[in-house]
Amino acid sequence: MIFKAEIDIMPLEAILDPQGKAVTQSMGNLGLNEITNVRIGKHITLKVDAADEATAKNKVDEACKNLLCNMIMESYTFILTKA
Amino acid sequence: MIFKAEIDIMPLEAILDPQGKAVTQSMGNLGLNEITNVRIGKHITLKVDAADEATAKNKVDEACKNLLCNMIMESYTFILTKA
Repeated sequence: MIFKAEIDIMPLEAILDPQGKAVTQSMGNLGLNEITNVRIGKHITLKVDAADEATAKNKVDEACKNLLCNMIMESYTFILTKA
Repeated sequence: MIFKAEIDIMPLEAILDPQGKAVTQSMGNLGLNEITNVRIGKHITLKVDAADEATAKNKVDEACKNLLCNMIMESYTFILTKA
């Protein structure tokens, strides 16, 4: 069965996000002062071929921990749907 | 009222995503051959201060179109929740 995973990887709350800070400041320059607290991470979609949802979940966890996410500075969440 | 926006910005389907292609290949090298079609975009969270949800939606649309998203190569979706 093919599952689609939608993964969000964000810098940990405790860690300064300089890219987000720069964008927050730019919002002010564009006249969008109402927008604050911008934080920027990655959104990754992928397909995973697995017998069932539990196996697919394990594969995606493995991919996140070993390749996609730097667990020291980032955290990840994902949702799986049948493709 | 403060709303929280969760924005996903992805390269358009028609556009080659070289970063995603490289990661797809690396999945194979890690023994995760079941994972394919990796596409990598941005996940952005921000807070927006607005009188109601419709106003907040307009502000986020404006921010996406004018700053966050390159509409030629990317598309965006977002959800708003009360913070």
